[in-house]
Amino acid sequence: MKNEHLSHSTLFPMGQKVEKNFIGDAYLQMVFTDPAPLNTAIGNVTFAPGARNNWHSHYTGQVLLVTGGEGWCQEEGKPAQSLKTGDVVNIPANVKHWHGATKESWFVHLALTPGQTDWLEPVLDEEYIKL
Amino acid sequence: MKNEHLSHSTLFPMGQKVEKNFIGDAYLQMVFTDPAPLNTAIGNVTFAPGARNNWHSHYTGQVLLVTGGEGWCQEEGKPAQSLKTGDVVNIPANVKHWHGATKESWFVHLALTPGQTDWLEPVLDEEYIKL
Repeated sequence: MKNEHLSHSTLFPMGQKVEKNFIGDAYLQMVFTDPAPLNTAIGNVTFAPGARNNWHSHYTGQVLLVTGGEGWCQEEGKPAQSLKTGDVVNIPANVKHWHGATKESWFVHLALTPGQTDWLEPVLDEEYIKL
Repeated sequence: MKNEHLSHSTLFPMGQKVEKNFIGDAYLQMVFTDPAPLNTAIGNVTFAPGARNNWHSHYTGQVLLVTGGEGWCQEEGKPAQSLKTGDVVNIPANVKHWHGATKESWFVHLALTPGQTDWLEPVLDEEYIKL
């Protein structure tokens, strides 16, 4: 029996390995970058098990549409929120947070990001492994 | 062996049957309606085989993200475009068009619609069956 959590989704293209601001193996493919009719670009982000992005914040906010696997999204000072396929997350502007896969599962989301991003420090292993 | 084309995607919730402006069995679940940070609402639209929406146009345009199955999108006066999982379509403002499933397959897309929609006449069976 195939274990869906151990294989990544191929709904949208996986794209290239992200070289900055992530820990572990993560991949990004922009799927929509036209200037109209949306106020946002759309990227497909694929995290291998254990991969996550650094703490960061968005000038305008961000919406995540989870299309595969299991992951986490944590705002600073709050418990991490468990995410699975079909979940939709509205991350407010200027809120420090991170997102990424669980230790055991791939995690795939579309990220709709209408503004710029401020990248901050990594999520430390000792914080992450407690989840 | 499961035939993916004969079963609908359950990535996002299927929602309720659409009662107006569609032919055949189609379902809509809004998945994002917050006023910020996007300029658009997002709906998950699921078409049973043979289902399609009426001809229509969008005041501001629309973006489709195909998440399952096989379908068609046709602008008036142009050949119908075949669509499959992973395709992204940018429908310009005020362009008369329709979209829907193929005769044999379910079809599922996220629809990002930043403005209002003008609904027009149905896509006739004699046009559709030629595809």
